[in-house]
Amino acid sequence: MRTEDIICAVSTAPGMGAIAVIRLSGDGAIALVDHCFVSPTGRKLLDVAANTVHFGQIISDGGVVDEVLVTVFHAPHSFTGEESVEIACHGSVYIQQSMLKLLVDMGARLAAPGEFTQRAFLNGKMDLSQAEAVADLIASSSAAAHRMAISQMKGGFSAELMKLRAELLHITSLLELELDFSEEDVEFADRSELHRIAENIGVLLERLCRSFSLGNVIKNGVPVAIVGNTNVGKSTLLNALLQEEKAIVSDIAGTTRDVIEDTINLNGITFRFIDTAGIRTTSDEVENMGIERTFSKISQASVVLLLTDLQRGVESFEEYYREVKKRLSATATLVIVLNKTDQVEDLLTPQETIRLFTSGEKIIPISARTGFNLDVLVQELTNTVNLNELNASDVIVSNVRHYEALKHALTAIQRVQDGLQSNLSGEFISQNIRECLHYLGEITGEITTDEVLGNIFKHFCIGK
Amino acid sequence: MRTEDIICAVSTAPGMGAIAVIRLSGDGAIALVDHCFVSPTGRKLLDVAANTVHFGQIISDGGVVDEVLVTVFHAPHSFTGEESVEIACHGSVYIQQSMLKLLVDMGARLAAPGEFTQRAFLNGKMDLSQAEAVADLIASSSAAAHRMAISQMKGGFSAELMKLRAELLHITSLLELELDFSEEDVEFADRSELHRIAENIGVLLERLCRSFSLGNVIKNGVPVAIVGNTNVGKSTLLNALLQEEKAIVSDIAGTTRDVIEDTINLNGITFRFIDTAGIRTTSDEVENMGIERTFSKISQASVVLLLTDLQRGVESFEEYYREVKKRLSATATLVIVLNKTDQVEDLLTPQETIRLFTSGEKIIPISARTGFNLDVLVQELTNTVNLNELNASDVIVSNVRHYEALKHALTAIQRVQDGLQSNLSGEFISQNIRECLHYLGEITGEITTDEVLGNIFKHFCIGK
Repeated sequence: MRTEDIICAVSTAPGMGAIAVIRLSGDGAIALVDHCFVSPTGRKLLDVAANTVHFGQIISDGGVVDEVLVTVFHAPHSFTGEESVEIACHGSVYIQQSMLKLLVDMGARLAAPGEFTQRAFLNGKMDLSQAEAVADLIASSSAAAHRMAISQMKGGFSAELMKLRAELLHITSLLELELDFSEEDVEFADRSELHRIAENIGVLLERLCRSFSLGNVIKNGVPVAIVGNTNVGKSTLLNALLQEEKAIVSDIAGTTRDVIEDTINLNGITFRFIDTAGIRTTSDEVENMGIERTFSKISQASVVLLLTDLQRGVESFEEYYREVKKRLSATATLVIVLNKTDQVEDLLTPQETIRLFTSGEKIIPISARTGFNLDVLVQELTNTVNLNELNASDVIVSNVRHYEALKHALTAIQRVQDGLQSNLSGEFISQNIRECLHYLGEITGEITTDEVLGNIFKHFCIGK
Repeated sequence: MRTEDIICAVSTAPGMGAIAVIRLSGDGAIALVDHCFVSPTGRKLLDVAANTVHFGQIISDGGVVDEVLVTVFHAPHSFTGEESVEIACHGSVYIQQSMLKLLVDMGARLAAPGEFTQRAFLNGKMDLSQAEAVADLIASSSAAAHRMAISQMKGGFSAELMKLRAELLHITSLLELELDFSEEDVEFADRSELHRIAENIGVLLERLCRSFSLGNVIKNGVPVAIVGNTNVGKSTLLNALLQEEKAIVSDIAGTTRDVIEDTINLNGITFRFIDTAGIRTTSDEVENMGIERTFSKISQASVVLLLTDLQRGVESFEEYYREVKKRLSATATLVIVLNKTDQVEDLLTPQETIRLFTSGEKIIPISARTGFNLDVLVQELTNTVNLNELNASDVIVSNVRHYEALKHALTAIQRVQDGLQSNLSGEFISQNIRECLHYLGEITGEITTDEVLGNIFKHFCIGK
């Protein structure tokens, strides 16, 4: 990845818009744009102050390409840390193409995905976990995912890692003093003090690792399975939740909403509904295979809504309940939903009947058709995600790469603890601390390879 | 349409991008953004110089919405002529929505389509024909349409209308002098001088009206019909032209190309291919109806490519030729294309045979499969559009509304000429000149109604 040349890209969403923004970064970017920019005042971009906007025309051999606003940034006070220019032009696809063609003809190079952010990282404007948060931020589609990405971008996670690093270096310095005098068999480092610090680090790393299950769910959506008899009202419930989402989110006209089937935002959390076939007792072998597939999907869900139709009573319900419980993942929540309250008089009897053979699961009577009690169900769904952790200053890990590095760091620090316990040599302990530091350095990008960088930035969009 | 409030909209293309730009315009826009903007330097946007960019955070009750760049414009030195702010944020759909929601909560209003441009018009930053050119520019997808829109936006057409207006006012002033003294039966105005001026205006108006057929074709594409026997290679030719387009246009990765089926850009001109069924002599009544439909479509085409397969000889060709000629529009161009040169040895004999019964049409042997002579065919297609008119400073009319106003103005000026010829009273002539001025005023927007404005701006995109 060469960093000495001038890169350019359309940074706004692809397609036609009122305006589009073309971004250039690299030494000489201002002079390059100056070559094709004509200001009505005759001023040259090379002469203007940093962070100022200038109206003018972009000219090519073929005449005026467009009337534009050009913003000039000087190094190091730009996103990339390099000299940068942003050209806001009219948003026709033809003009965007013509602009890029002109800039490339004049010596700029089309930017690779994420190359602007990569340069920001390489120039020390942000660490690697912050750079990754930029991509997460752009991809975030719920309030919780957005909050998590903003916190990471602002360096919340980096600060946490810095603290860990300081602690680790503290142990190292104590140990090294000991090593220097090892031949004299002096033990400067208070081993119990070392052990206390290592334990603290272990606790912190463990908390970060544990937060990944929440972070992952926030980032990718909470997997929810609705299970129940055929015709029990699964799709009516999904549609009703979609209505609820609309009421909560209050869509604003003029922006496109990315609709993904069966993904619903409720109270700022994305829920991803797992498609399951209806289940019913049958001797049809093929149908039973479908039911088995449904049951096996239950193990992937964080929340299972076991839906039943009040009209049809609770007869075969106990059987389903036992089948579901068998497959339920240890950390998953099961909620029993009694649908069609609008079709029956008595709600208490079925609730009491079910309560007899269940083990304390929430039982929520609703009507997907009329919307009765849907708010209670939504609240129950959002309760399954402990968002309070997010409100606290606690850092949530949402990136698999970070999670894996943290797990390695945790293993290393556990070896340190064991070593201290077993009174192993300072050298052995020191080596494991170095390993722990190495894994933390991988997260922030102090230690990295071109391959790792390539893998991270290729998933960015172009122009970022 | 209220103009005293603050409007806001996402101005970049809808969907996810690296960045998005949110635009605000109206008195108090800077103070409004200042309420939710926090700069690391603590500087307030109300205190900063016009046309400067500032990094900071947009804050709502829920915390940080995003890290942004905010550009501040002071009235009247902005696109709309009003106090304006542009917020460049990260391009997630969620952030775009959150931003708009926040701005609306704080008192801004979502902008209607084209409302920013409409305000620019109402504030005298551009006349109506220039405002319309902004929309044309954003929609333009070929070099020629782009050049035409840029010229109109820069005021080329407006200047032409200004000249006409000056001439008309010149006649009026001469006539009014005469009218003031009408009771004394004095004739101050030299009627032959008046006639000369009116004639000039008529010639100019006629030229503008005539240019519409070219302007319309440039804006909407040249309608081309490929007619010929079934299996003569129509779709192979279309695909080959699409390849040729790619070679000419040299698409640049990273921008989306709006592909519309059967629309091809060649040498900067859009060609719109009319779908026609293959024709062959048959007694099948249903099939004959299809063929009749094909022949009727020929009358809509500006260019007809009569395609024949050299392998199959030129036997039934004369019949098609006569059928096509019968339906051809008076201004259309017919080109005879002999396909599959790669399948035959002799090219001259069929050309000579065809030349015998045709009346001077170009005959171009090609191979759609190998690409032989395709450049000649492309050149012939682009020759049908007289782009030289565009290179000259001559104004091209491309807007139906303008064309209709110009036709009315032309009728009025012709009545002026007739009146002068027949020595009609100055009052009658004066009235027709006023009418002519009225129609020209409709184009630039000096004379307009809310309904006309509504019709024009509703076709704009939001955020422009």
